[in-house]
Parts: sequence; structure tokens; C-alpha cells
Amino acid sequence: MLRVAVAGASGYIGGELLRLLLGHPRVETVLATSNTFAGRRVDGPHPNLRGRTDLSFAAHDALEERAGSYDVLFLAMPHKQTMGRMARYLELAGTVIDLSGDFRLRDAEVFADYYETAHTAPGLLGSFTTGLPEWHRDELRSADRISVPGCMAAAGILTVRPLAGAGLIDGPVDIDARTGSSGSGVSAGSSNLHAERSGAMRLFAPTRHRHEAEIAQATGLPVRMTATGVEAVRGVQVLCRVRLAEGTREADVRSAYREAYADEPFVRVVAHKRGAYRLPEPKILAGSNFCDVGFAVDGARASLVGALDNLVKGGSGNAVQCLNVRFGWPEETGLEFTGLHPN
Amino acid sequence: MLRVAVAGASGYIGGELLRLLLGHPRVETVLATSNTFAGRRVDGPHPNLRGRTDLSFAAHDALEERAGSYDVLFLAMPHKQTMGRMARYLELAGTVIDLSGDFRLRDAEVFADYYETAHTAPGLLGSFTTGLPEWHRDELRSADRISVPGCMAAAGILTVRPLAGAGLIDGPVDIDARTGSSGSGVSAGSSNLHAERSGAMRLFAPTRHRHEAEIAQATGLPVRMTATGVEAVRGVQVLCRVRLAEGTREADVRSAYREAYADEPFVRVVAHKRGAYRLPEPKILAGSNFCDVGFAVDGARASLVGALDNLVKGGSGNAVQCLNVRFGWPEETGLEFTGLHPN
Amino acid sequence: MLRVAVAGASGYIGGELLRLLLGHPRVETVLATSNTFAGRRVDGPHPNLRGRTDLSFAAHDALEERAGSYDVLFLAMPHKQTMGRMARYLELAGTVIDLSGDFRLRDAEVFADYYETAHTAPGLLGSFTTGLPEWHRDELRSADRISVPGCMAAAGILTVRPLAGAGLIDGPVDIDARTGSSGSGVSAGSSNLHAERSGAMRLFAPTRHRHEAEIAQATGLPVRMTATGVEAVRGVQVLCRVRLAEGTREADVRSAYREAYADEPFVRVVAHKRGAYRLPEPKILAGSNFCDVGFAVDGARASLVGALDNLVKGGSGNAVQCLNVRFGWPEETGLEFTGLHPN
Amino acid sequence: MLRVAVAGASGYIGGELLRLLLGHPRVETVLATSNTFAGRRVDGPHPNLRGRTDLSFAAHDALEERAGSYDVLFLAMPHKQTMGRMARYLELAGTVIDLSGDFRLRDAEVFADYYETAHTAPGLLGSFTTGLPEWHRDELRSADRISVPGCMAAAGILTVRPLAGAGLIDGPVDIDARTGSSGSGVSAGSSNLHAERSGAMRLFAPTRHRHEAEIAQATGLPVRMTATGVEAVRGVQVLCRVRLAEGTREADVRSAYREAYADEPFVRVVAHKRGAYRLPEPKILAGSNFCDVGFAVDGARASLVGALDNLVKGGSGNAVQCLNVRFGWPEETGLEFTGLHPN
Repeated sequence: MLRVAVAGASGYIGGELLRLLLGHPRVETVLATSNTFAGRRVDGPHPNLRGRTDLSFAAHDALEERAGSYDVLFLAMPHKQTMGRMARYLELAGTVIDLSGDFRLRDAEVFADYYETAHTAPGLLGSFTTGLPEWHRDELRSADRISVPGCMAAAGILTVRPLAGAGLIDGPVDIDARTGSSGSGVSAGSSNLHAERSGAMRLFAPTRHRHEAEIAQATGLPVRMTATGVEAVRGVQVLCRVRLAEGTREADVRSAYREAYADEPFVRVVAHKRGAYRLPEPKILAGSNFCDVGFAVDGARASLVGALDNLVKGGSGNAVQCLNVRFGWPEETGLEFTGLHPN
Repeated sequence: MLRVAVAGASGYIGGELLRLLLGHPRVETVLATSNTFAGRRVDGPHPNLRGRTDLSFAAHDALEERAGSYDVLFLAMPHKQTMGRMARYLELAGTVIDLSGDFRLRDAEVFADYYETAHTAPGLLGSFTTGLPEWHRDELRSADRISVPGCMAAAGILTVRPLAGAGLIDGPVDIDARTGSSGSGVSAGSSNLHAERSGAMRLFAPTRHRHEAEIAQATGLPVRMTATGVEAVRGVQVLCRVRLAEGTREADVRSAYREAYADEPFVRVVAHKRGAYRLPEPKILAGSNFCDVGFAVDGARASLVGALDNLVKGGSGNAVQCLNVRFGWPEETGLEFTGLHPN
Repeated sequence: MLRVAVAGASGYIGGELLRLLLGHPRVETVLATSNTFAGRRVDGPHPNLRGRTDLSFAAHDALEERAGSYDVLFLAMPHKQTMGRMARYLELAGTVIDLSGDFRLRDAEVFADYYETAHTAPGLLGSFTTGLPEWHRDELRSADRISVPGCMAAAGILTVRPLAGAGLIDGPVDIDARTGSSGSGVSAGSSNLHAERSGAMRLFAPTRHRHEAEIAQATGLPVRMTATGVEAVRGVQVLCRVRLAEGTREADVRSAYREAYADEPFVRVVAHKRGAYRLPEPKILAGSNFCDVGFAVDGARASLVGALDNLVKGGSGNAVQCLNVRFGWPEETGLEFTGLHPN
Repeated sequence: MLRVAVAGASGYIGGELLRLLLGHPRVETVLATSNTFAGRRVDGPHPNLRGRTDLSFAAHDALEERAGSYDVLFLAMPHKQTMGRMARYLELAGTVIDLSGDFRLRDAEVFADYYETAHTAPGLLGSFTTGLPEWHRDELRSADRISVPGCMAAAGILTVRPLAGAGLIDGPVDIDARTGSSGSGVSAGSSNLHAERSGAMRLFAPTRHRHEAEIAQATGLPVRMTATGVEAVRGVQVLCRVRLAEGTREADVRSAYREAYADEPFVRVVAHKRGAYRLPEPKILAGSNFCDVGFAVDGARASLVGALDNLVKGGSGNAVQCLNVRFGWPEETGLEFTGLHPN
């Protein structure tokens, strides 16, 4: 059994990591840290884990104290809290999988621009592999420094990259990302009270959402991204509007997706003519590691659509998939849940 | 124009008071206090008031400083913050209308039992008139100390009292109250985040909810009350289960309601045989001052049902109705909104 | 009192028309038709009207039988059911206000393209005035044939036209419209069941939504529109992304909006720097006749945002505002409701 | 591999059966019937199954035509459609597991009373074993006729029976059941449109809900049950209010639950002092086969609370658990999913 530790395990992403790792047949979760909940059972903030574990949280310092007791370290802390200590984390475990935003961008200037602070470990930026198996599987097989994409970025990259790679997109990509409330995290303030968020269409990023830099980096195309919070707990959907390269037909678009994802266990191409679920819908993906991608073509324009569970394929599940790749296990291991309908 | 002040005006109840008072043709709102928002516009925390007022919040001390500039003082502060200063408030304005829980119960011991603290102004308890026009209209015409019932209590009293008064109930009343998330207020913690509250059926008071004491006081019957938070922003529904007195038939129940509320502008008797809205449903009452009451009889047992908007008939609207009674205006003044369907 | 009839009064738009007209001090609603509900009380399908009216539905033929008993005829039937009989309707009442899509587009070919059927009364198309007082007030003062814009179209036109008119937009307008479930109407099928629609992000028009033709017609710009159903009952929000004309600064955008809407009773310019409600949010507009418009500028790109209640400013309320203009009454008459927060 | 057929597989319960059976390592699903969807892929109405199966629906007659090709027959048709053909179904497969209401009650008169129709196969009523492993495990090991309890009944029986069996309840049990919208099924009418159901507190059974008869049958106590539809897609919660037998203390209640369920894989006793999830909450159970039970004692009165996913432990999951018992497999097989938080 591989021994894993999860730092920042009391948040929503941390909770999903615990759920997946506790159900993973090849992994033993030996440590979960949270300064807020130190000494308390993990099934307190994560009540869905009742009956599945007797684990309690340790304080964050336990990462040092128990160094050697774990082989892999998952980092699920808020943005900007990881980069300052990354050099030390890399000494603590053989493999580090970071779910924060700190090592997603390879260029320190772009980071500074989007995160509005200077990167404190710019020398490490280039050493991380992007934790998206669909596009980095070979590198991930031997990677010991993995940076998992942001939830909207994962959806955006998986949706845009097949066409970008095939040269089917002419010009910039306009993305509107819609997201459920869990994306704001467990410590969010009064604007995320149920009474304020219920039924909302909150354009919280009317221009230049942070994840646009990740998508631009991965696709090589200019990206202009807005983000809207809508009523759902889980789920991200990206609507990507593009001009198609001259001569591109619908069949070319379909082929590009099919070729890119024919053998992928967690990407489904969904582009039907009718029905409420004819295009990717996050509602039926909650808890699953799927990313559904689809499209609609109208002449020279196309709407490309991607959907996933922001906490799973947009975070924890994707991280576990990377772990599976890294250690040579079947990629579906521990990620078998299909999603629910209705839900 | 009557000049009014609202203390504690940045909360949800305070915001609804401002909405109603700003639209009231006989009232001028001269002062709204909030220590948190002092100096800022009232349409900041209450964005629905944009374009309707240029009023800004004053600090709470302005109640003293501007004494004499207002005739009526509405108190919309959290429970237990009002009683200690009530003696002073009564000197500041000719009429005081309190929306907190501090002066609803007439018995200091019962208060201590339910609020888990000793009352700090027990001598004033008996001097307040219950702010429920349907049952205290004559007293309210000359009352200068008015205590508005709690949201669930208002629903419970309006639902149970006609039968209790007619002697049609045998024994205790078992109430389950269901409530939307706005009842938790604007300063609630992480358990009221959208992600935690969405779709919940949260039995937050599995026994002895505080409002049971008010309903018992008003009906003279033993009351056993539970409370459940469900997904809705506004709305309270009480399901009251009783044994009917021997020989009571459905027609007697219907008559008791009809007699009690035939001339009431804000209570509707809703008891149809079929349809999604055959019994009181808070969903269609949001923003209105209605309390709908209804019933279903099965042999010797009956389910009595009441519904209202917790922030309106369960608080601010009811307070404005009391104001209308007190000053001899038509009771509907400023309370004409009907409610929406669908909503 | 002006006497009005509402045809197609049992749907959601019809219900809102009845709510507004029954509360309108200068109007008497003498007739409401519905073949499905003929003979039944209007407060059956519209339970929020209980206690406000004793009116019952008549069959649709009553429009003929009672010709002369009403001065104004509101038509709230589904699309494509109105055009065939419009010539006759125009004989029945002095003023006809149509809320269907049949007479919104002035060009029969464009209609055929977007509605996928030939127009059956093309000769009448040009005779209707667009029912949007903000841009057609003078014509509306004497108009007897009024066609009220679609809900998304109203939001889009009000949001885009000030900049389009000032020449501040360079090139096409990309719109994503998000809408609540009431937009699908009361007779929608299984895909609108709560279990299917709850929490959805349903891209039901991934390209070329019908209302794009109306916005293009009104602004003179190319429009590319998608539409997404999200969880809310009421509300439409349009996110319009444009390139600004060279040299346009944020202050120019702000000025264009302020100039266009400075004196408008029902359009508010909402563009703050922070806060959950810094941009237009339909959640706080339910039941009100407001359209909020706002914007965010990032270099040469801008996101323009509009929000309204699809059944009110996007339909019935707008129609009543047109009525007020047509008959020379204050425009706010019967439309005073402010909207709720929280909601 | 055991070969199974699912009749009535296009509904919500049928869809969940397919999800669970397709993921079950010891079962091969050879037939799924639906007259409405005959010839179409099962991932049409059940889009969450995309990529997991290529199965298509057969018409209902295929049960006859392919007799012999399956060992176990699950029946997931609407109530009253199963009893007339049950004699024939029993000839078609060695083991029949019925998820309808037709064979839950053992007494034909009680059935007629609650279902308002005479039972058409009264002679078979006594031959079915109740499909609730927690209370019928030994019988189920050899049962070939299994009737799975209703969703609210399962919750009610699991919640009440431990105390009833220990003699800790004095007198009747008053139950209010709250349920999500999926309980109304996929073919429900306009009252289950999203616009009508969103945010509702719909007291659809103000007295005598059908499932009360099942709970009374299983506990031997008088039961008085109401039912309320609230906003959630999945989930049932029962609030059961009882008088405790004289001398019963909180510790006795706790012991009764602990003893009853100490070794149960799918029942968790949840009764904490504080926290949003201190009592059973269906929100975190969606997709899982858990039934959480808890309680709060106040003197001689107690509130007993149970929660489950109406489509899983309240239907399909419970049926699969029965299958596991019947064929001697570990009970968790195919039912490992834990539930999500937040959700």
C-alpha cells in the first residue's frame, strides 16, 4: 500500500481527496492536516465519511514531524499559501501533487499579473508537470512534481485543445465559465450565504478570470474568459465560442474530438441533436471524474462546451487519476463512480 | 408625515422594514442605524432599494443624538440586545415597535427557560402589546409599546388560535415549522453557506423550538414544536397536528376559520380538495403580508397549516400593519403587494 | 376606467398581466380568456391572486362575443398562434398589445428564418410599434398596435443600444443569455420537471437563439446569441461581449449609459467595483419592472450586462408600461413594486 | 455471473437499478424493458450511463420472449400495474424482486383502504418477504419473492422499529415525511414543473400518507403520517415524534439503536449535540445506500429522525442489497458509494 498524506484536508477539495483516497484499494491515508480542526475527527467537517474512517486531523506541523511516514503528499491549501514552502514540501515526500494555483502557470510574470502578487519560488515553476493525464500522460508516468489545473481551466483545456491542436480554430477563444457554489470554498463570507447565492446569476469575473491564463498557456490561443456563479453546489461548465478555420466543417470538429479522446476513460464526447442532455451538463456529473465535451457548429462559428465536477475532475479526482498514472495502476482505480440522474 | 427611525437596519428584517417604509405614503424614514455600515448608503446591503432612496446608515448612537427627530422607533436588532436598553428607547420615541424576541413572552421565567438567560428588564415585560392585529387590534389602536411576534410564532398563532378559541382542540398541539434560509439572518456562519444549505432538510430544533412558548402563551394550549430548515430563501410553514374535541366535524373547523378571519385583509383561508396549492404554500407569498391558513381533517385528527413570508407577515410587514392600526390608517397602506406565481 | 381584456390569460405571462392589471388604479379587467380553464376562477392557476379577484376565465371565443366591452386587448398566446387572427383582433379593440413573438420582427424573411415557418400576415408586420418605452416612447404615445419584445431581446436591446447608438462598439456583439425556468412556460414537458431542471446549466440554444434577430434589428449590429437555462424561476441576464471602438474609455461607456437612461424610471445603471451585486443580478428583480444594466471594461474589450424579470420587464410589466405611455398616465402606475432582497 | 432483467427500466427507480447493476461485479444485466423507449439506448433517458453500457430497451413483451435468459427479475413499474401479472412473472424467473407498492402490505383490506382499489392477487400477498435486510435478513437468504418497501416506509421502519421492538414507545407515532422531487417520478405533470416545485413546501399528504400502513405493519404501533414535498431532487427524511415509555432515558434510546444496528453496513446512528449535520440529513446521502437514524430526547418526548436517498436505500439500492443477501455475497457489493459533501 502506498502511504499518502493530505495537507489542507478540511476544505471541500481536501474532503473529496479523503473520500477518494479512503476508497482507493492501493492507498493508505496516513495523515490529514488542518490547523483549524487539529485533533478532531475528519468526519466532523466531512459528514459523508461517517463509518468509513476513524482518522483525525493533525496540525499542519505534523507534515514535518511525521516525515517518512508517507510517500506521496497532496497539497490542498488555498492559493498563495503553498509556494513559499514548496521547497521544503519537496523534501518531505517523494511525490508532491499540488492542487493550489501556485504552480500552474510556468511564467512568473503571468502569475504576477493574474494573482496580483510576485511568485516567491519562481525557480520551481518550470519543474512541475501539468496534472492533466489526457494531455500529459507520458510525462506524468515519472513525474514527482505535479500541479493539478484549476477547475475551469481543466474544463477549458479539455474542451478547446483538440480543435486548437488540429488547427481548426481561427483567432481568440471567448469563454464563459459557469460554476456552482462549492467553488468558493468552505470559508467564504456573507456573499455566499444561501440567501444571497440561491438562484443567483453572479458575474463575479466580468473580464479576465484567472483561469484564462492556464487555458491560453495550454492551447496557445488568446483566451478571453468571464465567470458566472449560478445555482448549483457542484459543477463547472465552459461555453467556448470560436471562429472555425476556413473550410472547417462539423465533421472535422467531431473527428478532432473523437480522435483526441477515443481511448480516454474519463472524457466523453456528447453532442446530440436534441434532448435536455444533448450537450455537456454538470448536473449529472457530481461525484464522478468525467469531463464531458461537446459542440454545436453554425457556419463558421462554433460553440464548444465542457462540463465537469469542479471538486472531482476539476480537482481531487483528477489528482487521483494522476496518482494512478504515476504509479502505473489502472486509471479508473478508485474513480468508478458514474454520477447520478436525476440529481 | 410621520417620522420613523429604524434601529438595526442593515439586517434582513431591517432591510424589509426600509423597503416597506420607503414605499409608505404616510411615513418619512428619517433615520436608519447600523454600526457595521455607518456612513454607507442603505442600498449597499439592500441592493433592491437602488434608485428608491439616497439614505445612508447612521451609527447606533444617532438614536440619542437625533432624539426628537422621529416619532416612531422600530427596533430590529438581534435577540437579547434590546432588553437592556429598552427603558431608554421608550424615552426616545413616542411609539416603540420591537421586532426582537425580548418582549414577546410576558413571563420572565418562561423567557429565561427558552432564551437561556435572565431577562434584564422584567418589569417592562407586561407593558408590551402583542403586535398581531388579528388578535390584538383594539389594544394596538392606542399601544405605544408593541412587540411583534416571531415568524414561526405568528404563523402558529394565526393557525391554531381560531380552533383553540372555539374549543375545538383536545389536548396538545404538535407543530413542525419549516423555514427558509433568510430566517438565519445575514451574519450567520459557515453552516448557512449555500453549499451547506442547498437542498437541506435540517432539523435544527428537534425539540422545543423557542417560538413554542409564544404559541402556548397565545393559545392557552400545550405546544410541542420542532423546526426544520428547508431550501427556500423566504417562507415559514407550520404544520400543526391536533386531536379535535369530541364531536367536531370538518364543517366546524371551516366555520371557526371563516368566522375568525372573514374581515381580515391579510389572512386567507386556503383549504381546497386538490391542486398543488390546495394548502398554504409560502412560495407564493414572498414579499406579501399575507398569512394563509388551511386544514385537513381525518376523523378525530386534523392537520392545521399556516404559511407566511418570515420577513414580512413574520416580521416587518406585520410591524407596518401594527403601525397602520396604531395611527388609524387603512391597514393595507404600504402593504399592497400580492406575491408572485410562479416564484 | 379603461376596460381591458387579456387573451391567453392562464399562462405565466398572462398571470402576471392579470396581477398587474388588477392592481392598476386606472384599469378594469373585464375579460380573461383561456380555453383550457374556461369557466374556472383565475385564482386557480394563479393562486397568488386569491382574495384579489373573483374573475373567471372565458373561452377564447368570448373575445368576439363581448367585442365592444373592452377598449384594449392584450394578447398573451404562444408564438405562431396570433399572426393568423391578428387582422380580426385589430377590429375588436382600439388598442392591441401583443406579447407573442409574431410581430416583433419587421422583415418576413428574417421571421421565416428564425421561426421556421412563413409569416401568415406579412402585410401587418410593419404596422406594429416596438413596445419598449425607453427607445420608442414618442411613437408609443399614439400607437394602437404594439408588439412587446421578447424577454432576452428586451434585456439585450436595453443593454447594447446605448453604446451602439453612440458608436462605441466595433463589430459584432456576442451574447450569452441565461434564463430561469418560467421562461419555458406552464405547458412544458418532462425536460422541465424539477428533477431535471434543478441545478442545471442547460445550453438549450448553443447557437442562434431566436431573440438575436430582435437585438440585431434594434441595434443595427451583428449579434451572435447563445442561451442557457439555469436554476432560478424568474430572471434573465444577458452577458454581451464586445470590442470597443478605438479610443473608447470606460468613462465614455459610463456616460453613454447615463445619458441614455438618466430619466428612465425603470432602467438603473449598476456598475460598482465590488460586492456580490456590483453587476446586474436578476435575483433581486423578481416581480419588479426594472431592467438593470452595467458593464466592465478591460482595455479594448467590454462585458455589458443586463438583467430583468422575464415575466415583468421582459413581458407583462413592459406591456403595462406601454399602456401607461399610450394613455398618458405616469409610467410607474401599477408598477411600483421594488423587488426583494434577499429572495 | 447472475443474469438479471429489469422491467420498467426507463423510470427513475429503473435508472438507478441499471446504474447499480451495471456496476455490480457478479451480475450481468441482460434485459431492460420499457414500452415507451423500446429500441432506444438506455443512456438516452439515463444520460449518466453514457460510456458505461451499450444496452437498449426492449418492449415489455420481451420478458416473455426471452424467458430463460435471466435468473432474477426486478420489477420497477408504477403501482397497481404489477399485481395483475405477478402470477406470470413468478413463472418467468427464479427470483422476483418487486419495487412497486403492490405486495408490501400483507392484508388485502388494508391495501384496498390505502390504494383505493381492490387487490387483484390477494392470494399472493402473504408469499412475499419484506425486502429490508436489517429486519428480514434470515428470511431473505432463501426468499424468491421479495417486496421492497416504499421509500418513506423504509426510512420510517428503520427509524422506529428499534424502539418499538424494545418497548420504549408509548402510544402512536406521528410522522412527517419530507421528500425530494424525484419521488414523483419521471412522468409527473405540471405541478412538478421546476417553476412550481422550486422552493416549495408542499403538504401533498396532510393526513394518512400511504406509507403509514407499511410502518404500522412493521412496528405494530399506530402511525399517523403526513408528507411534504420540499426542494431537493433526492432524499427522504422522516421526523417521528413519540412519547417514550415510562422511565425511558436518553441512554436507553441510544442503546436500542446501537444494539439494533451495530453490525449493519448501511445504517449509521447519527445523534450529535451540535453541528449542521448532527441529525440525519438526506443531502449527504444522495447516491449512497445508507440510512442514517438519529434522535433527540426531551423528557418523556422524543423526536426520532431517519434519512435516506429515496431512489437508493428507499428503492434500488435496497433491492440490490436484498439480492446480495439472497445470493450470499457481501452486502456492500456494488453499493460502495459513500455520498457527497457538499452536494
